Amino acid sequence: MRIRVLVKDLLGHVGQEVVLGGWIHSIRKQGKIVFLLLRDRTGIVQIAAESETIKPLALHNETVVYAEGMVVEDSRAAGGIEVRLVSLEVVSAPKKSLPILVNDKADHQKLEMETLLNNRVLSLRNPKRNGIFRLQADIIDCFRSFMRDEGFTEVTTPKIIATGTEGGTQLFTVDYFDKLAYLAQSPQFYKQMLVGAGYERVFEIGHVYRAEEHNTSRHLNEYVSLDYEMGFIENEHDVMDVEERFIKALFSRIDSELSHLLQMYGQTLPVPEKIPRISVREACSILENEYGKKTKGLDLDPEGEKLICDWAKKAHSSDLLFLTEYPCSKRPVYTMPMDVNPDFTRSFDLLFRGLEITTGGQRIHEHKMLLDAFDRRGLDASQFEYYTDTFAYGMPPHGGLAIGLERITAQILGLANIRESSIFPRDRGRIVP
Amino acid sequence: MRIRVLVKDLLGHVGQEVVLGGWIHSIRKQGKIVFLLLRDRTGIVQIAAESETIKPLALHNETVVYAEGMVVEDSRAAGGIEVRLVSLEVVSAPKKSLPILVNDKADHQKLEMETLLNNRVLSLRNPKRNGIFRLQADIIDCFRSFMRDEGFTEVTTPKIIATGTEGGTQLFTVDYFDKLAYLAQSPQFYKQMLVGAGYERVFEIGHVYRAEEHNTSRHLNEYVSLDYEMGFIENEHDVMDVEERFIKALFSRIDSELSHLLQMYGQTLPVPEKIPRISVREACSILENEYGKKTKGLDLDPEGEKLICDWAKKAHSSDLLFLTEYPCSKRPVYTMPMDVNPDFTRSFDLLFRGLEITTGGQRIHEHKMLLDAFDRRGLDASQFEYYTDTFAYGMPPHGGLAIGLERITAQILGLANIRESSIFPRDRGRIVP
Repeated sequence: MRIRVLVKDLLGHVGQEVVLGGWIHSIRKQGKIVFLLLRDRTGIVQIAAESETIKPLALHNETVVYAEGMVVEDSRAAGGIEVRLVSLEVVSAPKKSLPILVNDKADHQKLEMETLLNNRVLSLRNPKRNGIFRLQADIIDCFRSFMRDEGFTEVTTPKIIATGTEGGTQLFTVDYFDKLAYLAQSPQFYKQMLVGAGYERVFEIGHVYRAEEHNTSRHLNEYVSLDYEMGFIENEHDVMDVEERFIKALFSRIDSELSHLLQMYGQTLPVPEKIPRISVREACSILENEYGKKTKGLDLDPEGEKLICDWAKKAHSSDLLFLTEYPCSKRPVYTMPMDVNPDFTRSFDLLFRGLEITTGGQRIHEHKMLLDAFDRRGLDASQFEYYTDTFAYGMPPHGGLAIGLERITAQILGLANIRESSIFPRDRGRIVP
Repeated sequence: MRIRVLVKDLLGHVGQEVVLGGWIHSIRKQGKIVFLLLRDRTGIVQIAAESETIKPLALHNETVVYAEGMVVEDSRAAGGIEVRLVSLEVVSAPKKSLPILVNDKADHQKLEMETLLNNRVLSLRNPKRNGIFRLQADIIDCFRSFMRDEGFTEVTTPKIIATGTEGGTQLFTVDYFDKLAYLAQSPQFYKQMLVGAGYERVFEIGHVYRAEEHNTSRHLNEYVSLDYEMGFIENEHDVMDVEERFIKALFSRIDSELSHLLQMYGQTLPVPEKIPRISVREACSILENEYGKKTKGLDLDPEGEKLICDWAKKAHSSDLLFLTEYPCSKRPVYTMPMDVNPDFTRSFDLLFRGLEITTGGQRIHEHKMLLDAFDRRGLDASQFEYYTDTFAYGMPPHGGLAIGLERITAQILGLANIRESSIFPRDRGRIVP
């Protein structure tokens, strides 16, 4: 039986014969020697072989092989390690010519997004692009371990639902036997119910669905939401405090463990000391006074989000900015109004390098206040009794938020299009692959 | 500002005044003293108060309160700790009478499943039932950390898909703008594609959807699948080896960290030394010879699964059993046939206490073999080109499996109905709450 050694572990095998398994990344002939680059999930190593040995195998790029050889130190090879080939077994050779190059070192932006996505398996073999989802896996892992350390319980809530969360628009419909059902836009109602079910602090990492017609570089119709909800809070600042600690933990981890990936993308990721918090009113007056930009109805458009982040960078040296106290009219029905001025809410967004990556806030926990809020919006609360009843049986003050996984991934690496940070994105026109 | 202390941390605060937050679990009057049990997410503690202080508050069970009091050691109280009340603030009082008891110590099975699920927030406040999803969160966490330690990358794949994975039956349909789409029955194709995309080893924790008409105690229409897929394997036994190690890690962790929950459910969880592996042919002959049970077409019905687990317990002292080498006709089109007898496959199920909790196997990685397999089944491979093309560009031998999260949860605790181990289950008739 073959014991396969991974490229990352080769340094521990100098002077030994090992078996490597992977894809042929490139082939370069130099006189009687052929230099193969072999790629596995942990890295790339150079294999030196005699042309005579290799020739009969008719190797191509992306052929899967097992290669047996001697590990030697060689300062001319990248990583200081070379493997001198003893024997090579072709496991799986390409049957078609490659529609895109895998080992293209040039900026992959030169490939059209459509080409990248139509050839997803091949485009992801490129080490730079491959790294996007290694980072994403680490974001998920960091979120999960951070949340558990803070006493949150991980939950999974249904995505097939009977009524919309935010009022019934922008929902995909599902044929559920003899019933009409919808795909969940967010786990909002369920995570609140689970706070009330005694878990107090819950988090979920799961898909959400938005049937939004617009097809922009910032929107996906299916995306992964990092959600949490916590009980026994004083106000929305407790929710922001947790996110601030999470962001610090995440950025520190990426900075120390994935610095090579940040370098590949030409990015740095300063760990914030403190994330500034300003109200939307303040933000709008800064935009008007410092940037000459008028805003409509205390809401920032994408350009306003970019400019206010520009201001945060200048005024606070911060890549991140909390905007707080959104007006009621801009927030969902369950958002807690402020005591003093109930036209405004205990809610916030977190902006990161010009893009909103989080929406959150304190929620209404009083039964009658919630029913009244439904009424004022002209919504029929009786349709949501399974949810509103939660507040009739003893419910602590609580709040929470949702972080868009693809958005935070894209912003960390400076990706221009959100589709690059979804493995198999779903947009207005795409459901394949 | 209140600094809330959790019940689990009270022992460190003996002799101090603290603030607790939680739900009133029960109220018991004894002369001039009222004993309240207060429940938070970490436990239950007794609070002693003077009747006179408490009376004006008109407390009910399940009222949410902040209670300030002195922590004292008292051997008469459960846990050896009592809190002597100083002041009590009602945060949220029930507005309706409770439709079910939360503090019912009697076996909850006496409540109808429908009642439990219709009152999910309240039924989950019961500590015994609440524990089910704490266990489930730990299963998820253990799976994730185990997989990461084994070099797997966590991925999230789309649940809105254009074609079925297993041949197009039992799919829920989704209105996707102007297209007809489906909900994914499994991440099978995508995880194979991601092995081929260079990740080699991937895992996913996500929802899957089965539009199965039957409404049994073993089936859900939406459930959570713990999936992994791994490249560069010798055969299906590599996949089983990983699962065996995972099961050992999981059972050890539950046994050491959640023994109180196992006790509540009257269960033990012996960590297996080695999980026996027998072929389905052997299993059928054991059933016939030792239990007088005839089987049809080398397939076990639910009774057969129970009996063969009974045999495994007697013959191997094992709660778990791998059944291997299923006939091709019983397995999906992508399953790798055996070399010697290609009517059988390199596939397996894992049975646990009478129930199948895993299906897995080695997959076909040769392009032509896969296209031929589609042909033989009368399937149109061109419909799946986004998937089959993966095998045209260099693909390692690989295999994987899926573990049903709700099923393994139910079997660990001995729950009779799978609905008990889904927070908000979706079955033939239920999409609320």
